[in-house]
Amino acid sequence: MKNLVLMLLCSIFFCECCTNSSFAQHSQASKILSQTRTYRQANENAIIREFRDFLALPNIANDSASIAQNASFLLAMMKKRGIENVQLLGGTKSDVPPAVYGEVRVKGATKTIVLYAHYDGQPVNPLEWSSGGKPFAPVLRTGALDKGGEVIEFPAEKAGEKVVFNPEHRIYARSASDDKGGVVAILNAFDAIIKSGVQPSMNIKFFFEGEEEAGSPHLGDILERNKALLKSDGWIICDGPVHQSGKKQVVCGVRGDVGMEITVFGPKRPLHSGHYGNWVPNPAQKLVSLLASMKDSTGKVLVEGFYDDVVSFSEEERTAIRSIPHPDEQMKRELGVAKPDGAGALLLEMLSLPSLNINGIRAANVGAMAANVIPTQAVAALDLRLVLGNDWQRQTDKVKRHILKQGYYVLDREPTDEERLQYPNIAKVRINSGYNAQRTPLSHPLAKAVIQAVQASSEETIVVVPSLGGSLPLYLFEKYLQSTTVTVPIANHDNNQHAENENLRLKNLWNGIETFVAIMTMKF
Amino acid sequence: MKNLVLMLLCSIFFCECCTNSSFAQHSQASKILSQTRTYRQANENAIIREFRDFLALPNIANDSASIAQNASFLLAMMKKRGIENVQLLGGTKSDVPPAVYGEVRVKGATKTIVLYAHYDGQPVNPLEWSSGGKPFAPVLRTGALDKGGEVIEFPAEKAGEKVVFNPEHRIYARSASDDKGGVVAILNAFDAIIKSGVQPSMNIKFFFEGEEEAGSPHLGDILERNKALLKSDGWIICDGPVHQSGKKQVVCGVRGDVGMEITVFGPKRPLHSGHYGNWVPNPAQKLVSLLASMKDSTGKVLVEGFYDDVVSFSEEERTAIRSIPHPDEQMKRELGVAKPDGAGALLLEMLSLPSLNINGIRAANVGAMAANVIPTQAVAALDLRLVLGNDWQRQTDKVKRHILKQGYYVLDREPTDEERLQYPNIAKVRINSGYNAQRTPLSHPLAKAVIQAVQASSEETIVVVPSLGGSLPLYLFEKYLQSTTVTVPIANHDNNQHAENENLRLKNLWNGIETFVAIMTMKF
Repeated sequence: MKNLVLMLLCSIFFCECCTNSSFAQHSQASKILSQTRTYRQANENAIIREFRDFLALPNIANDSASIAQNASFLLAMMKKRGIENVQLLGGTKSDVPPAVYGEVRVKGATKTIVLYAHYDGQPVNPLEWSSGGKPFAPVLRTGALDKGGEVIEFPAEKAGEKVVFNPEHRIYARSASDDKGGVVAILNAFDAIIKSGVQPSMNIKFFFEGEEEAGSPHLGDILERNKALLKSDGWIICDGPVHQSGKKQVVCGVRGDVGMEITVFGPKRPLHSGHYGNWVPNPAQKLVSLLASMKDSTGKVLVEGFYDDVVSFSEEERTAIRSIPHPDEQMKRELGVAKPDGAGALLLEMLSLPSLNINGIRAANVGAMAANVIPTQAVAALDLRLVLGNDWQRQTDKVKRHILKQGYYVLDREPTDEERLQYPNIAKVRINSGYNAQRTPLSHPLAKAVIQAVQASSEETIVVVPSLGGSLPLYLFEKYLQSTTVTVPIANHDNNQHAENENLRLKNLWNGIETFVAIMTMKF
Repeated sequence: MKNLVLMLLCSIFFCECCTNSSFAQHSQASKILSQTRTYRQANENAIIREFRDFLALPNIANDSASIAQNASFLLAMMKKRGIENVQLLGGTKSDVPPAVYGEVRVKGATKTIVLYAHYDGQPVNPLEWSSGGKPFAPVLRTGALDKGGEVIEFPAEKAGEKVVFNPEHRIYARSASDDKGGVVAILNAFDAIIKSGVQPSMNIKFFFEGEEEAGSPHLGDILERNKALLKSDGWIICDGPVHQSGKKQVVCGVRGDVGMEITVFGPKRPLHSGHYGNWVPNPAQKLVSLLASMKDSTGKVLVEGFYDDVVSFSEEERTAIRSIPHPDEQMKRELGVAKPDGAGALLLEMLSLPSLNINGIRAANVGAMAANVIPTQAVAALDLRLVLGNDWQRQTDKVKRHILKQGYYVLDREPTDEERLQYPNIAKVRINSGYNAQRTPLSHPLAKAVIQAVQASSEETIVVVPSLGGSLPLYLFEKYLQSTTVTVPIANHDNNQHAENENLRLKNLWNGIETFVAIMTMKF
């Protein structure tokens, strides 16, 4: 960690301050990048065709049949590329979405890295998607939808002519960016290296998870059961977006995450709001009061002890954060935010704290389907992000205690008729599977090697982030494999990840391929 | 009004205290009821077949094409029964759902009444409906769905055999109870009278509205333009449920109603809750705080001046309310309510106050479709019920002022990019068309005649209610026609009116037919 500032300076002035030895490395890296870029440019259409077929497979983690199709598709992609020992790593139960594994042994290599991405996607509400509500029918747009990007046909291949895509065009589909884009970047980077006659600098293992968006409930089990197979000198995680400035970034930590669902109960059957309104308590009114009690107007969480366990960033990490170009003003303009939460704190400072976010709320209907009723229940989906020091179970316990303190009888199931008559306020609280935060020291040899490699693949100064706002189950790699992780995202920051109209800008895919070419051939 | 207590006593002890003259009337009424009951019993299958065909027509007020089909169907129903001068009464615009009108002139009659029901229904969310999500495919159940009522085939007609329905069975479909059931009861009561060789005691006009559930935005206009055609000695409104005890009721007033929709804005595109959670304000969190500020934990509305305009019930009306059998304990058990709003007040007392109800609330998704996002907006549909003294525009202005006081910039449209960057809190507030409350004195001759007629059609003591919790645009009849209204509901109280799985118990339809037989032949 003490080398952090030096390292950051190194990375910032990489081109200017390189030694003779690093100059040779740099020159070699440039040559490889150039070769692999030529290969990719000649094969854009094949890459996109395969990507489209992959995106056309629905991939929500709880849809076992679809997940199995994705896993088969992925196995075939890996076999086609000559990756060896390909196999599905399942858990103990048949409905566990399997991780898809493969490996490449490199002659003379002394180190082994595992490249990780996930092939499952966030749940979808098709009605919210543009282009006919089909999240699994990939479309090409001339740019970002909210900036007027229009749907165009994928270019047709003509015999003898190379198909060239406009790099500003984007593919829209669930998982285009999160995280089938990551899978496709890794496998095509490998392809480009091999087809260009280059040799990876390390043994490479591939590990593609199938339930990351469901909170990775079986990942620990899979890692533990395959400890020998997964032996390595570190994991490189490909997930998430690059920096809002468009610069590539290397991320050395992530927040943890756990989901909760709170249901508050009203009358047993929906009621006419005229005949009973004012007398039968409205569950939506109860829920809004409960949720309002959890945060103040600056976004500070009022749940007792919510910030108690937080391990603050070290002074060095804070310095690193201050060195990062801050996207705050850009993001305020881009998102239409007049006043962010946090009473003046920077985005990156706020991301170093645990959060409580309403993912969704629902009671009866609004808009054209709204009717004059007292709803029978009101539901809120919450998302708690965790930082170092937080434990996901302890954090949800605090929220549960808060609900109890607001006078609720808390259950993990529907109330019985007797309970409804006994308790005025009843909440069903369901806790999803969660995981804790993780951080790798910026001075770890793997982190240093990856930062150098990614910088070598970029014309701009890259961004090094001690911890990302988003989450990945990286603490499981520490816990079960005692292994180090470094995260290298590739998606555009405005990718609508987790929401409708998710998309990947093609330039980011091409850059991502080059990033992973650099990583697979890095000195480590 | 001073005759109220006496009148109530009269109605309660009707059978015991009747005079010789009323005995003759009673005897005549009994004979008519018996004759028309025989007719109905012989024709149950034809009545239900027609009702099913009627319910199979979708009837949401903003769906012009479907509304036109309903109006045609209704015209045909009326013509088939020999009702004269049938016609559609439209507004000035072509997309106004027409009222369907017809009349019967009775030889020697000196009085004229208009019978009102509405043929449009509340909006539906098909996904919420049992039986395959088809609100317009009527099904027969052996009882209430929430008490285990099961779907059975409608009985088949066999040559020469009379089809008899179990009166406890229920028809499930949108508008079964609210209010196509009312239309069908009125038209079949007329049929039964005529087919039994009886003559109505008055001229009868029929007026079936087509946009009551949309807030009757054009009713005033239709009434005004057809003042001469609609000349009468009073209107009888058939809508709403009978008393929770199962007793028939006559209602002399209704609350007014106005809907509002509040949209609070978040980031311009949906965001990953990890990468931005804690910094980009969540519109659902803003909305819950805003809504929570509107009511306290006893359900009291905290909007300034909300109760200021209320014209309280007179002491006589309060006495009448106290005389009504109170369903509070029954409803608490039936609905699973441990502690009603209102700090101990009775249901009927609470219904004498204006209300603010959350009809629905929505931001992003919950359940299986929930994703880890900061939503772009959060929406709440509100329903304000009004009592005598309230004005619907003044009441919504109070709520708007409350929103302003909470620090919101209030618009009636989407914010521009500039506004988003200028104002931290932006709410779009849409006010639907509304109408005020109405009350007819219990001592009005029409009210007295109707109470006596309905009592004569019932074996139990009926319930007389000064004002219903629900709403009907009755003040428009006063305003545009200077006419009096009395409301006679027929639906079972547990009919899921306005919600999914709306239903009508057949016994209530049969009783409703008899109620309107009594009204059409009453002494007035």
